Amino acid sequence: MRTTVGWQADHAGDALRQVPLERRDLRADDVAVRVDYCGVCHSDLHALGRPGRDTPLVPGHEFTGVVTEVGSGVTRFAAGDAVAVGNIVDSCGECPMCRRGQENFCYAFPTLTYGGTDRHDGTPTLGGYSREYVVHEAFAYPLPAGLDPAAAAPLLCAGITVWEPLRALDVGPGTRVAVAGLGGLGHLAVKFAVALGAETTVLSRTDGKAEDARRLGAHDLVVSTDKRQLAAARDRFDVVVDTIAVPHDLAPYLKLVALDGTLSVVGHLGSVTVSMMDLLVGRKKLGSAGSGGRPATAEMLEFCAEHGVTADVEVLPSKQVNEALERLGRNDVRYRFVLDLADLS
Amino acid sequence: MRTTVGWQADHAGDALRQVPLERRDLRADDVAVRVDYCGVCHSDLHALGRPGRDTPLVPGHEFTGVVTEVGSGVTRFAAGDAVAVGNIVDSCGECPMCRRGQENFCYAFPTLTYGGTDRHDGTPTLGGYSREYVVHEAFAYPLPAGLDPAAAAPLLCAGITVWEPLRALDVGPGTRVAVAGLGGLGHLAVKFAVALGAETTVLSRTDGKAEDARRLGAHDLVVSTDKRQLAAARDRFDVVVDTIAVPHDLAPYLKLVALDGTLSVVGHLGSVTVSMMDLLVGRKKLGSAGSGGRPATAEMLEFCAEHGVTADVEVLPSKQVNEALERLGRNDVRYRFVLDLADLS
Repeated sequence: MRTTVGWQADHAGDALRQVPLERRDLRADDVAVRVDYCGVCHSDLHALGRPGRDTPLVPGHEFTGVVTEVGSGVTRFAAGDAVAVGNIVDSCGECPMCRRGQENFCYAFPTLTYGGTDRHDGTPTLGGYSREYVVHEAFAYPLPAGLDPAAAAPLLCAGITVWEPLRALDVGPGTRVAVAGLGGLGHLAVKFAVALGAETTVLSRTDGKAEDARRLGAHDLVVSTDKRQLAAARDRFDVVVDTIAVPHDLAPYLKLVALDGTLSVVGHLGSVTVSMMDLLVGRKKLGSAGSGGRPATAEMLEFCAEHGVTADVEVLPSKQVNEALERLGRNDVRYRFVLDLADLS
Repeated sequence: MRTTVGWQADHAGDALRQVPLERRDLRADDVAVRVDYCGVCHSDLHALGRPGRDTPLVPGHEFTGVVTEVGSGVTRFAAGDAVAVGNIVDSCGECPMCRRGQENFCYAFPTLTYGGTDRHDGTPTLGGYSREYVVHEAFAYPLPAGLDPAAAAPLLCAGITVWEPLRALDVGPGTRVAVAGLGGLGHLAVKFAVALGAETTVLSRTDGKAEDARRLGAHDLVVSTDKRQLAAARDRFDVVVDTIAVPHDLAPYLKLVALDGTLSVVGHLGSVTVSMMDLLVGRKKLGSAGSGGRPATAEMLEFCAEHGVTADVEVLPSKQVNEALERLGRNDVRYRFVLDLADLS
């Protein structure tokens, strides 16, 4: 076993505390990664607070770092390589979805970076709020030169979650895209849509984010609580990416979708009730997406390097993790906290 | 005023009875149509039975016939022309949807063929269960030679309702299509998908329709109550057209949709509750469609003439209209009743 240090919460609702952690000895296809930066994701909050959880949790599933050691069979990496890891660290590799490079939809369920179970030894996976992570080389991605490793970390979960639907829905020049909710996912959706060449609009409950929207590259902002603005935007967008993290009525957002367009809901993933008439009129579609497969993740990182896209982050030393989580819970961040794990050395 | 004869129900639940009807004098852009054949649609049943309805109703919104007279400004038709009329007889003509040829989604709501209100004189529209209909020439379609006028009548509502989503979803060679529910809409969806070159499968609760499915051209039938067959068909279809007319759980049908594919619900149009996870896994989409615009309707009729596609119909003299409705209510028809209005002469 290898040993490292991380931030762990023992039961639901507990604060995170610094603990020693064990990592597996390297298998032939493993790389050991020194975790430098790890994003703080909304789903970390959910996982930490899940009622009844009584097993220790080390969150963190979007991180960047440097390879420190490689297994005997590793071919893609060498010590010293900058890498990034997302929220999936393994999959069956054999099902139709894995064969199509959509490991996020693996029939046997992908192994999650934390809160999952290793497919080989059955141990619980512990996340990236730690100084070292050991991962199968297939689920580490080269971090392209030129990408700031702190600002790149959130690409690996927030980023890929909005990248996949934008790509699947053929967003590009000539496409009209709206993004609802300007948080971790939303601000990256705006940057991606702009960089892909789409006419991009932010949908926000107030105009308080108008300046941010412009700074992110958006061409317009529609205030979703203003009935006149909403009415004027009827049927306007080929793609609406809904990153709002709380339950909400989808009907007002469906009205903004253009003929044959799609509302892609990626922020809140419970059950929703929709009137089929809201889909029928305009032949609109409701979709969703989450996380990403290996090819799309690699493609996204290359695209980000080429277009200079990273997240807007507030970097905190990892000892401030509880403060970061508390502030994230009340949306007090523009737009993603990233923990600097150097203080765990 | 012109006078004709039709089948009318005075209140909800009443049987239809033969009554004299008035039609408007021809406006400059009107044509008078001798109605020869009118399909019996599920929505006729709904409209007739709508609780509390206390205004007379003459159903019928998919019919074929012959132009008998034209208004002074009519340019597209002359007396003697074979024509078809669907469930829309007018629209604002100016809104973004009308300008795109999607009069079915008119912002000012299209004028329905029956149960609607004429946009010019405010009179209620009376449907095609009658010997004559007067319609703006823009909403009459040339009935291509070679199409049997009785079997073509259902194309104008059942047909176009499944044609539009199949076309919008780019169904063609290489596409895998499944059709759930083998009724008026479903059997036409199968014929269209086959004629468009798609690999076409019928989803049915039993294998009792296997022979029919083959006769309609389907390449396969999956029994939707057989868990093993359902499991084997997971993620198999790019497009699933759901024509089932009663409320039902969409989850089992979403499971059959392929990566980035669409479940298009056209049979039952109430509210539905879906788990976003059923859309997320496989980036699937839920859509709907209904009726059609003028360009698509004309295109469909040309396609049908070219490919020899019409509905499978049971033609009854119109005096048997109440029997037809009663049998339709218990799905005792393969696959569409069509009234022969000649007995009203």
